[in-house]
This record gives sequence, C-alpha cells and structure tokens, in this order.
Amino acid sequence: MFLEMLALPFNVKDKIEPEFFSYPSKSMEASVEAVERIINYKFRNKKLLEEALTHSSYTDSASYQRLEFIGDAALGCALSNYVFLAYPSLDPGQLSLIRAANISTEKLARVAVRVGLYQYVRHNAAALDDKVREFALAVQEEGDSVLYGGSVKAPKFLADIVESVAAAIYVDCNFDLQVLWVIFRGLLEPIVTHEALQQQPQPVTLLYELCQKDGKHVDIKHWRKGSKNIASVYVGGKFIASGSSDEKEIGKIECCKGSLAEAVI
Amino acid sequence: MFLEMLALPFNVKDKIEPEFFSYPSKSMEASVEAVERIINYKFRNKKLLEEALTHSSYTDSASYQRLEFIGDAALGCALSNYVFLAYPSLDPGQLSLIRAANISTEKLARVAVRVGLYQYVRHNAAALDDKVREFALAVQEEGDSVLYGGSVKAPKFLADIVESVAAAIYVDCNFDLQVLWVIFRGLLEPIVTHEALQQQPQPVTLLYELCQKDGKHVDIKHWRKGSKNIASVYVGGKFIASGSSDEKEIGKIECCKGSLAEAVI
Repeated sequence: MFLEMLALPFNVKDKIEPEFFSYPSKSMEASVEAVERIINYKFRNKKLLEEALTHSSYTDSASYQRLEFIGDAALGCALSNYVFLAYPSLDPGQLSLIRAANISTEKLARVAVRVGLYQYVRHNAAALDDKVREFALAVQEEGDSVLYGGSVKAPKFLADIVESVAAAIYVDCNFDLQVLWVIFRGLLEPIVTHEALQQQPQPVTLLYELCQKDGKHVDIKHWRKGSKNIASVYVGGKFIASGSSDEKEIGKIECCKGSLAEAVI
Repeated sequence: MFLEMLALPFNVKDKIEPEFFSYPSKSMEASVEAVERIINYKFRNKKLLEEALTHSSYTDSASYQRLEFIGDAALGCALSNYVFLAYPSLDPGQLSLIRAANISTEKLARVAVRVGLYQYVRHNAAALDDKVREFALAVQEEGDSVLYGGSVKAPKFLADIVESVAAAIYVDCNFDLQVLWVIFRGLLEPIVTHEALQQQPQPVTLLYELCQKDGKHVDIKHWRKGSKNIASVYVGGKFIASGSSDEKEIGKIECCKGSLAEAVI
C-alpha cells in the first residue's frame, strides 16, 4: 500500500558504478541482465525490457515510444499518489509542483545518468552520444541541490528511457502501480520535497501556477538581439517583464523572476 | 485485469434520469446516497464522497480540489492503460489523441450533465448555476457525435466534479486503478474510438501533434476586429494562417484547419 511506502529506505545511488563514457557494444541479453540488476527486478517477459531499451533510430525492432507513453502516465499517477498521501495539508498547486520536480525531464535524465542506463540502449543515432556525454559531464560537476536544470539542458531522450523502463516494469506486473512504485521509487531518490522546493522555487513554474490560479493565460515570447536571447512575459495579453541572457532558458527564468516581482508589488 | 475490461458492457446512459434544472436543496447524506446509486459503488469512507461533492465556495468543509488533483492523474493513467491495450499497433501520438478525447474537459463535463451530478454539489457561487444551465441546454440539443465541444464551452467546474468523484472512489479502494476502471468506465461511455476520431479529427490537436513530431513550436494569437475574433497560427515563429469567427474557439479551429491545409501542400 502506498501509505507504507512513504518511508522506503532503498537508495540506488550507493550501489551503482556509472560507466557513462564507455558505450561498449553489448548484446541485448547482457543489457537486459545489467538493467535488471540496476532496477533490482527480474522480468517475466524480457521482451518488454528489450523494447524499452530500443531507440527509434534502431529500426530492426519495436522502439520504446509506446512504452514511454504509458510510463509517463504511470509515473505521473504514482507520484500523484505519493504527494497526495505524504502532504495531506498542501493544496493542489503545491502538490503539482512537488510531483513535477520529481518526474521532470531534468530529474529523470539525471536518474538515467546516475544509474548508467544509457549504455544499454541500442540506437543508430551518433549525435545522441555527444549530447549525452556533454550532459553527463555537466551533471558530474553539479551537486544534489540542482532541482531545475543546470548548465546543460537535459536531453529528453534520457528521460524517455527512464519512463520506458518504468513502463516495462508496469506492464510486466500487470499494470500494478503499487508494485511499480516499490521497485522504482529507489531510482528517484532523493525525492524532491516540499521543503527543498520552498528553499529553491522555480520561477517559471511558480509564475504559471500563480496565473493558473487566477485563470490568466501566460505567454513567454523569445527573440534574439545580437548574441543575447531575450524573453518577455505576457499575462492575459499584457506585457509584464523581460529578461535576457546568452542562454535562452536562463533568459526565460530571469524574465519570470521579474514578473513575479511585479506580481508581488 | 485491464485486458478483460476492454469489452465491459455497462452503460450508465440508460438508467439515469437527468434532473438538471431542479437544483433542490439536499442533505449531504441524501446526496451521497444518490451519487452512490449513479456510480453503482458503496463507499467505505463516505467522507471522501462528501469532499468530492463540495465546491471551494462552500467554505465550511474541505473542497474537492485535492481529490480533483489525484482524480485527474488516475483517470489519465487508467485511460492510458486502456488505449495502450486496446490499440496495440497505434503510435503514441494517436494514443494521446484517443486518451485526450475521453478525458477532456468537454467530455467529462458532458458526463456530469448526462448522469446529473451537478445537483448534488454543495456550493455558494450562484454564477455556477447559470453557466451549468446554459451548457446543459446546449448539450441536450447536440448529438453523440460532438467530440470536441459544441456551441457552448464546457464549464471546467463540471469536469472537475467528475474527476473528484473518480478520485473519491480511487482513494476509497486503496489506490487500485483497476477497481476504479471497472466502476468508472461505464460513466465514460460511449468511449471515443480511434475510428470516431479519424472521421472527425480535431484541427487544433492535430496541428499541435504534427508540429510536436517535428519539434516545432506552435503559437496561436488571438485578437478582435470589430465583432470578429481573429486567430492566427505561427509555427516556429513563422505566420501560417488566420481564421475568424464570432466565437473565439471557432476562430481558433478555423485557423488551425487553414494551417493544416498549408502543411499538406
């Protein structure tokens, strides 16, 4: 039952050696065994895990895209259950923020890096290797306190693998969300808490949340001026604030910070 | 198990008399009993259903907002399971469309109207009555073939009630999604099928789906010109097409149709 799982002590971090930069050519059988060890779960139907470890560029077999679809929904629901039970006095806006922080692309891609899933994915897209290498190196430099993305944007592909592996477990155990949570929770550790978010709130999310509560539409427009990326926030069609940076995402965060300051005033 | 549920014959439509315009003052006990009959489920913890039937304007008791949060996730996951199993050869984009059509605000608000849930909700916001009455009258005029909204936009509040009642069942049965699906599927009948969507594709959704596949950003801008609402589609920052109508939503649909025609060319 979910209530009993709130304090699950399992933490994958201690027992996995990241071998992120070796990318050896592995047989699928060996990959399945290795991933089973990582997630501490033996598949009844190993084809599901094979599918979860197959990128769409590898055209000889079914790719993980359908599994990713269901993994996204299953993790979303599992995290909803978790935050609903763990925080009985928080409102839905706060619950949404905690849930989002634990299943965001930034978070799940870091899970993929930490447990070393990438090396077991078969694909024929060389560009993926470079993107993953750049991101993994950046993650190695950062601390546990990075909740919303660091210097290199997380490749969505890495989060997709985590979702598809979750889906493979979920389908293998007959769509039992509670079994999935028992197996998968450890991979998500450390779970981002309400307290952590309060210490480090995400300006973009906060702005959307606040405006959604008031039924107002947020629109963020981007353009370039020389080498700068400029972002402007419009709420209900009205200009609120701008921010700029060499990095598009950072410009966006800056303009949202500005808008929040306006809103407080 | 989900596989066995694909052909569940239960259909609520035949057995419920809509009493949408009476809004009698009911005791919560009587409301709980009536809704239990509608959904054909007896609650172990009736407080959950009471919470699901309490709008935030009724400030004496906890409102349904937290339940709605978890109901949204649970219905999303239940529908994901369903379409994943029912359509083994469809890609995730197609699965997303079928799922969305079955849990959209437009769909769930129609469920609330059809089974007559609104009259059992306690609230202190008189404006809700007018909105619901206008929508319910419009729904009575339309046929089963309306998949994407008719002449009156669905009040989100009505969909929220359906989600919160789903959540009350889900929490009452210890977060068992399969139990929820057995009980709730009948309320969602007729389930929108892939075939129905192909006959009546939603231009706005289709456009977003197509552009998402190509990694392109869609932006729809609205403005008024006299009595007309004009909508324009920009894809990747580039203007594609415009549409106009007295109704903002219809203008949006028209400009998306135009954009799809451009995309086909």
